[in-house]
Amino acid sequence: MIKNPYTVNLDPESGKIEGAKLTIRRLSDMADLYLEGKEVSLSSGVDPIIYEIYECSHPSLEGDMNFGTTVMRPGKVGKEFYMTKGHFHSKLHTGELYQGLKGIGLLLLQNQDKEFKCLKLSEGTLAYIPPGWAHRSVNIGEGPFIYFFIYPADAGHDYESIMKMGGFCKIVVEDQGKIKIQDNPRFKA
Amino acid sequence: MIKNPYTVNLDPESGKIEGAKLTIRRLSDMADLYLEGKEVSLSSGVDPIIYEIYECSHPSLEGDMNFGTTVMRPGKVGKEFYMTKGHFHSKLHTGELYQGLKGIGLLLLQNQDKEFKCLKLSEGTLAYIPPGWAHRSVNIGEGPFIYFFIYPADAGHDYESIMKMGGFCKIVVEDQGKIKIQDNPRFKA
Repeated sequence: MIKNPYTVNLDPESGKIEGAKLTIRRLSDMADLYLEGKEVSLSSGVDPIIYEIYECSHPSLEGDMNFGTTVMRPGKVGKEFYMTKGHFHSKLHTGELYQGLKGIGLLLLQNQDKEFKCLKLSEGTLAYIPPGWAHRSVNIGEGPFIYFFIYPADAGHDYESIMKMGGFCKIVVEDQGKIKIQDNPRFKA
Repeated sequence: MIKNPYTVNLDPESGKIEGAKLTIRRLSDMADLYLEGKEVSLSSGVDPIIYEIYECSHPSLEGDMNFGTTVMRPGKVGKEFYMTKGHFHSKLHTGELYQGLKGIGLLLLQNQDKEFKCLKLSEGTLAYIPPGWAHRSVNIGEGPFIYFFIYPADAGHDYESIMKMGGFCKIVVEDQGKIKIQDNPRFKA
């Protein structure tokens, strides 16, 4: 239990939060998730950072909240835009709020009934993710896409369910210079 | 239960959130809370807005979250800086997060053991209010003080406990041109 109130500083330009725990996700951490992830990963000989997470997390207790920022790099793996791993919350009935800070991104959402939604985020957008919706972010801009997030501390992360389904039912690709949301050929309904 | 994900836009300059519920708190809504509140209220003949709240709230269910902004006007009632009513959460074991957007304010915090904390907020400050801490904001700047807030949707607001105690144990006043945190003479421990 967190006993005492505290402050930390968030730099909206870089997305950095002083004193927060930093997690770095590289292509090698999630090559399976992209259609051409393994080929690109092996052939390029480099292992780019896809996104970084600065998080202030607390013990997993109902009533507390965890919060932080995600700083997504711009880029593509094959024709797919850089995206996060995506997850349900382990405690399914817990929501999450995103606040766009910089850049342009898409928030892909999918519930257990396989309903799909896509929301666009930029600076000043507040996106409410109700309980029960898995969420993945995609950087569709030319610079970093940065957002603030906050969710109940007892929510937990379920990445497995998404992996087993082959990802979300849709993927976000560049096709002849345009951003398109297409059916994911690897999705197992 | 909120079924579908959605977005709303937050203007960090004005603090306005499109489509959010607006609540306006005037001096007459809280004259009791200021040492000279009733005298000022009666003598001035005007009823100034102290602060406005733009809130996106959801049914009171565990796992959901409510969020919004508070836009505090600058000013004083007697020697006390404009402040919010202040409250515990009815469900005591629920936290809250504040994010400073504009201006300068103080966040006064007090728990049931009468421990007191004061945190300073400005643009980019994230303040975590752990479960069990009553909270009140004070605008100590010369312009609006605006912050974003988010808390569990089942938290509820307990204003009564603060009223019965005569407020927080400290008040924030201007004394000979300086901002001072002083003992609240009306506080009943």
